[in-house]
Amino acid sequence: MPDPTPKVDVPILKDLTIDNITENVHRINSQTEDARLKYIMERLVTHLHDFARETRLSTSEWMAGIEFLTAVGKKCTDVRQEFILLSDTLGLSLLVDSIDHPKPASSTEGTVLGPYHTHDAHDQTIGSSISGDPDGTPLLCLCTVKSTSGKPIADAKIDIWETDSKGSYDVQYEDYNGNKPDGRAVLRSDDNGVFWFKAVVPVPYRIPDDGPVGALLDKLKRHPWRPSHMHFMFEKQGFDHLITALYLRGDPYETSDVVFGVKESLVVDLGTVTPEQAKKYGVKEGAKLLTYDFVLVSDEETRRLRDEEAMKAMKKLGRENMAIIGGLLVPDVD
Amino acid sequence: MPDPTPKVDVPILKDLTIDNITENVHRINSQTEDARLKYIMERLVTHLHDFARETRLSTSEWMAGIEFLTAVGKKCTDVRQEFILLSDTLGLSLLVDSIDHPKPASSTEGTVLGPYHTHDAHDQTIGSSISGDPDGTPLLCLCTVKSTSGKPIADAKIDIWETDSKGSYDVQYEDYNGNKPDGRAVLRSDDNGVFWFKAVVPVPYRIPDDGPVGALLDKLKRHPWRPSHMHFMFEKQGFDHLITALYLRGDPYETSDVVFGVKESLVVDLGTVTPEQAKKYGVKEGAKLLTYDFVLVSDEETRRLRDEEAMKAMKKLGRENMAIIGGLLVPDVD
Repeated sequence: MPDPTPKVDVPILKDLTIDNITENVHRINSQTEDARLKYIMERLVTHLHDFARETRLSTSEWMAGIEFLTAVGKKCTDVRQEFILLSDTLGLSLLVDSIDHPKPASSTEGTVLGPYHTHDAHDQTIGSSISGDPDGTPLLCLCTVKSTSGKPIADAKIDIWETDSKGSYDVQYEDYNGNKPDGRAVLRSDDNGVFWFKAVVPVPYRIPDDGPVGALLDKLKRHPWRPSHMHFMFEKQGFDHLITALYLRGDPYETSDVVFGVKESLVVDLGTVTPEQAKKYGVKEGAKLLTYDFVLVSDEETRRLRDEEAMKAMKKLGRENMAIIGGLLVPDVD
Repeated sequence: MPDPTPKVDVPILKDLTIDNITENVHRINSQTEDARLKYIMERLVTHLHDFARETRLSTSEWMAGIEFLTAVGKKCTDVRQEFILLSDTLGLSLLVDSIDHPKPASSTEGTVLGPYHTHDAHDQTIGSSISGDPDGTPLLCLCTVKSTSGKPIADAKIDIWETDSKGSYDVQYEDYNGNKPDGRAVLRSDDNGVFWFKAVVPVPYRIPDDGPVGALLDKLKRHPWRPSHMHFMFEKQGFDHLITALYLRGDPYETSDVVFGVKESLVVDLGTVTPEQAKKYGVKEGAKLLTYDFVLVSDEETRRLRDEEAMKAMKKLGRENMAIIGGLLVPDVD
């Protein structure tokens, strides 16, 4: 039963049309005191409405969109995030990573997380093998992690994950239950910033394309493949979280990654393990070799760079009177 | 197992940045031969990316968005469409209706469908009572339906639905199973374009606000109420499908409908049934009276108006070289 004397103290909304509805939705959404939420909603509603106005969206297309989004939501489970997949395949994920984690020229670039990171990986010691795949091509990985000033970073947490030789991550195995992670591990860099491990050469794979996102790619005549790569995620107090991956040069999908993740600075040529290396690291002579020196950016430098780039972008867009409060961009209301 | 010699014949995509990712996503999406899909995707991706660039969206905000959309999808069932509710509360539904169903000045305006239309309503004869609510205030409804030239429209299918006296639609009753629809009916206009029926005075109600959309409204400090109204949907061969509603003047939410549906031309003053009317229509003297003359627009006029408005809007936006093919706007590629 409605309150017989409700208090309604909001802007008057009536006779809304194609031309005035946007400003009126802004008005009623502006009741929140959260300046960031207000700004996000203002931009969101503007773009949503402009999209409909510029396409002259029909009711049946709108309904197709509603049904598509509903199907995307229904496809999500604990081990499948179809909305992230949608974001990845529309380039939004890479864009947001680029905005939130700007990198100075001297540092390692970031890229998309992808849908297969888990929290199941075991802590392993340096020199361990992260893959139990007997069919994989053995790969020795010799890496370092340093700061932009070249100082080794000790005890960084490094999360690594890759496909097996068939192009599957462990979570895709039918009998996977989280107890026996494979093709993934968490390592810690030593006092010299060094970490090394044994793995297998990763191969290309299809993103899960049996859902609505796969159907969309199909309609767009896009293939669902990602090029061969190995994921790395770095965490270390005082440094910006780095999510990145190394890609193998010459992969058939090197220049057409379905989630737009490949950057030239992250493409590597695999070498071959020398007899000396084979002996030193306990691998077979002639095994493949991956070497890479990762460079992390300090939190402080990242924050400074992020804020600078935000203000520069606003200036370029002609959006004056913006401020950064708590690291987030909002209209400056003084 | 990946195809060992895959053919990859797509634009080269690598080293994508904040500034160049949008054009590159367009390039790979442009492989489809469906000109309308291509245009829709081009506008969608542009707005999605601009939204992220203009807000400098953070990774945690992006994740909050992913989780919100997932929750919206999970809330959808056969009798609850949370994405439509989201569209309604962001003003998109009213906007799309306005674009797709333009109305000349002489015709009845459309408004949002709302979440409570069903296909369960029974066909009833003119003069029937559509509500079995014993607590409702009796309402006699005397209506006509005509063309813009004033010609009565006979045998129009009219779908009518309204709340009971507590503000609930039948589908909200706990024991509702579709077998005993209440507060709804399908009528047919007579040869004079007349249709009349008995109902109860509708009251305000809350949209279903126990889901993620309700939580968003709460964050935005928006109330979840719709003002009292009765829904009407008209179908007649040769005429544009009309979805509309009549609102009661003086309702506490008349100017703050949470889904932006109220238009002055659809606001009615209820009268009182005269002794003569009471006798003629078989209702109690002093019952409330609603009278309205609906005017439908022909398919042809709607199509002409829709195309005209689309081209006018494109001109205003400076988007030249657009064409309308099969009723849908696309870039003109010759």
